[in-house]
Amino acid sequence: MGGFNVSEKPLDFLRGFTVDFDLKTGMSKMVDTGKRYLSQMKGMFADEAAFDALLAKGDALVYEFHSMPVPEHEGDLAFGCSIVYPGKVGGEYFMTKGHFHTILDTAEIYYCLSGRGYMLLENQEGDYSAHELTPGKAVYVPKGYAHRSVNAGEEKLITFFVFRADAGHDYGTIEEKGYRKLIVESEGKPAVVDNPKWGRL
Amino acid sequence: MGGFNVSEKPLDFLRGFTVDFDLKTGMSKMVDTGKRYLSQMKGMFADEAAFDALLAKGDALVYEFHSMPVPEHEGDLAFGCSIVYPGKVGGEYFMTKGHFHTILDTAEIYYCLSGRGYMLLENQEGDYSAHELTPGKAVYVPKGYAHRSVNAGEEKLITFFVFRADAGHDYGTIEEKGYRKLIVESEGKPAVVDNPKWGRL
Repeated sequence: MGGFNVSEKPLDFLRGFTVDFDLKTGMSKMVDTGKRYLSQMKGMFADEAAFDALLAKGDALVYEFHSMPVPEHEGDLAFGCSIVYPGKVGGEYFMTKGHFHTILDTAEIYYCLSGRGYMLLENQEGDYSAHELTPGKAVYVPKGYAHRSVNAGEEKLITFFVFRADAGHDYGTIEEKGYRKLIVESEGKPAVVDNPKWGRL
Repeated sequence: MGGFNVSEKPLDFLRGFTVDFDLKTGMSKMVDTGKRYLSQMKGMFADEAAFDALLAKGDALVYEFHSMPVPEHEGDLAFGCSIVYPGKVGGEYFMTKGHFHTILDTAEIYYCLSGRGYMLLENQEGDYSAHELTPGKAVYVPKGYAHRSVNAGEEKLITFFVFRADAGHDYGTIEEKGYRKLIVESEGKPAVVDNPKWGRL
């Protein structure tokens, strides 16, 4: 009789491994998260006065996400959880920076574990859509679309994500031009509106 | 003010969509599952007499899984839930057939939502390992490894999976030769044992 023969290497991408992501919190005992604070998102929210006023009260944690040392090979997959905190800058909900993949024609899956929000998609030609996320909904981010998670609820928005390990992150395009659309609270409800600053951040 | 601009096409892999997978049951209101009954798994369990005796009592559902019409493109991703029912054939736990990917060097992620079991991995050179799955554990199935979900608990084993859409399924190799290892109940606990029938199914 043999044993379970599991590698002693904690994240063995060549022989396989398990890693924990708490279904309620999205957090892991094995893998740390990268953290994005409000100060790192200057210029990304439309209302700059509201941004400065909020930042003056403290450098809030806006979101965090797991990043593992996956081999950047077209046959490997990167995965982890993303946790977007509740909050607003003016009327605009807390969100991730959003990015294209460097290999543009690669998709991504997000599976919502907890919270309420939207996945905002936008391609280089300007086609956009905002897909509601609630627990148990998976969103397909198609090839060629920038994607940004937006927390429109009162709790953390927690998603489990998977994408091709060699896809890469292009944050620059969004940092330079912004999204064409924003998701804001309007009359107590989420609404998609034009970004007045688009193309001239 | 614009709308959410979501495609009316239910599974729009070009513009994006959401799809529901219940976090408790793994089932979807939008997508059907393929079903594997005991009669379809003849020869895959080691104890043939126990298999015949169980089948004589009825053709039990062993597992089911979602399959969507994803474009078979290297930039797309296939995903869904797998539900393995509790049960045993002799001492051997209910399991999926197991398969290699046709594009062998492509990985897969399984994230356990509910239940208890193992992901049994085995490559063509005979390296194997059995990774315990409990709710909140994700398993990395590396490039080149056949993978089989094994339900070692009393409840359904429910996992959310993602793999490259063009990876393909090679079931034939396992159907012809079997796995080198089995997971059976031994003295009330799961154990990995040699498959007495390996290579001569």
